[in-house]
Amino acid sequence: MANETEHIDVASLEALCAGALEAAGARPGDAAACVQILIDAELMGLSTHGAVRVPDYARRLREGGIDANARPKIERKAPSLALVDGANAVGPVVGLRALEAGLEMARETGIAYVGCRASNHFGAIAPYGRIACEAGFVMLAGTNASTTMPPWGGKALRLGNNPFCVAAPGADGAHFILDMAMSVAARGKIRAALKAGRPIPEGWAADKDGRPTTDPAAALAGFLLPFGAHKGSGLSMAVDLLSGVLSGARFLTDVVTWVDNATEAQGTGHFFVLIDPARLAGREAYGSAMARFRELIKQTPAADASEPVLLPGERELARRARALAHGVELPAALIAELRAELRAAPR
Amino acid sequence: MANETEHIDVASLEALCAGALEAAGARPGDAAACVQILIDAELMGLSTHGAVRVPDYARRLREGGIDANARPKIERKAPSLALVDGANAVGPVVGLRALEAGLEMARETGIAYVGCRASNHFGAIAPYGRIACEAGFVMLAGTNASTTMPPWGGKALRLGNNPFCVAAPGADGAHFILDMAMSVAARGKIRAALKAGRPIPEGWAADKDGRPTTDPAAALAGFLLPFGAHKGSGLSMAVDLLSGVLSGARFLTDVVTWVDNATEAQGTGHFFVLIDPARLAGREAYGSAMARFRELIKQTPAADASEPVLLPGERELARRARALAHGVELPAALIAELRAELRAAPR
Repeated sequence: MANETEHIDVASLEALCAGALEAAGARPGDAAACVQILIDAELMGLSTHGAVRVPDYARRLREGGIDANARPKIERKAPSLALVDGANAVGPVVGLRALEAGLEMARETGIAYVGCRASNHFGAIAPYGRIACEAGFVMLAGTNASTTMPPWGGKALRLGNNPFCVAAPGADGAHFILDMAMSVAARGKIRAALKAGRPIPEGWAADKDGRPTTDPAAALAGFLLPFGAHKGSGLSMAVDLLSGVLSGARFLTDVVTWVDNATEAQGTGHFFVLIDPARLAGREAYGSAMARFRELIKQTPAADASEPVLLPGERELARRARALAHGVELPAALIAELRAELRAAPR
Repeated sequence: MANETEHIDVASLEALCAGALEAAGARPGDAAACVQILIDAELMGLSTHGAVRVPDYARRLREGGIDANARPKIERKAPSLALVDGANAVGPVVGLRALEAGLEMARETGIAYVGCRASNHFGAIAPYGRIACEAGFVMLAGTNASTTMPPWGGKALRLGNNPFCVAAPGADGAHFILDMAMSVAARGKIRAALKAGRPIPEGWAADKDGRPTTDPAAALAGFLLPFGAHKGSGLSMAVDLLSGVLSGARFLTDVVTWVDNATEAQGTGHFFVLIDPARLAGREAYGSAMARFRELIKQTPAADASEPVLLPGERELARRARALAHGVELPAALIAELRAELRAAPR
């Protein structure tokens, strides 16, 4: 029963999720922005950042942790710099507004930085990367997040898993999209293991005293571990500097947790850097260099012949294409939860 | 004998290295640029990228792999974009020229990207990061390099260790400088182990058939392994896209190896992104946010009380300050080699 799934086509899933968010008080345009990011992640197979987040977003909208009436404000700081005051709007609205402003500036000067403050969870970054690529731009982006890790050598929470994304357009939608969190594994995967009653692999997390654990409950009460030891730890700090310190957002331990506190603003920071590759080596030279880059990677002899070497984002974009054509399978309980949101009292 | 060291003050070391490079044909200004980067790395304790590289640079200058007479050329592509045609000049000359151009553009528009092509090994990135920080700028930078790793899941060389640096200025020289390569360990450390006749730790490398090895010779004939599995592999590709594909440089397997081929141009690519933090949240707000950021990290309870939690670059900058005051200890054989370079026939 708990593992029962239900098939749903993408248009129906989008309508269901938009309806759930609107029932929780989101304006239709804001609900559409959330659906664009969350459901794109779902289609890419990033299910911990997909439809499962819609009831979370709805709850925060209802309980006031997100301001359903907020309108983010752009502040242009220099020809190629802007800040977005998210005004505690729903995260994807802030993120998409920042991405749009960044693309606009980068069209003029070739590159732009946009920092966001007073935002909230803004979904996976890969969907933003796909949008930038479709517009022909290279994107570097990241976000801070409430703390889940100690810095390397420490035994208290200081760092979020602070995902970092590098995306670069390829021909015919074959984009390079690297979207990675700084922990060995995402917190969502540990929550999923807890829900499913499964242990987690060694190396993912430590308990609250800093001892390695495979118990998802102990891990959630303790620490995620950064990938690559001091390297992942340092990169998490770097993403927080770019997302939180530069933008004037909260950072490190000041970011409010998404999970346990649905009434308080998170104060999350994000950043986007957009670069126009066509104005560097030129559109054609860039296109043929990217094609050669892909070819060199994809032709690498595989260690296991049944698992060809893939580029970052390749698997996700293939899943997305299949989902658009054939729909997706979601837990029946999640679809029932989304339908219940539709019938819930308005905020 | 082999482990004998010799004490040398910084001014003497710089003069010795500059003289060695000039004897190999470098113009005085170009030799000074190399010394600025290589000796700054030495002072920071990054000895695999320090004085030990001077004889390598001299050899390539003599044998024609680097063009001692080259003058890099800046091409402005957009208000915030430039490319540097390195013209096969010595790497630090190309890198410093690019950094300077990037700072100049970022002073105007708030952010800039500079890509370099037709360059060579340009040293560690931390010294460039320190220069950017001293000028008050945040820097993201990287370089590609000849291949030492397979992409994740592959069993043939495709990726360089492609270091990536994020630097952000702190008050009174307390800068954040993260400078990390994509392999678990640097190739230089494996060469050092071979020279010292020591085995290397497990997890650093695989032999030519992809099997884990602790034999430095087998490792050098095989592969370095990326840190964080698919994450380090993906990040190495991202750095190559930004350094090689965007700049029109060589990339992946097309970058010529530094070590075995002193007569052929490497065709290396680098990139620099400079951001002016004072024009975002404002100089004061940035300064106090950075101070709070440092404090939050440094006050983390340490897992081992004798090893306090450090920020990236903190140890290196402290070593640098000590070296400037007290000089450094170098292998006596290296100093003898540098002195022999001074007496060698001119190119």
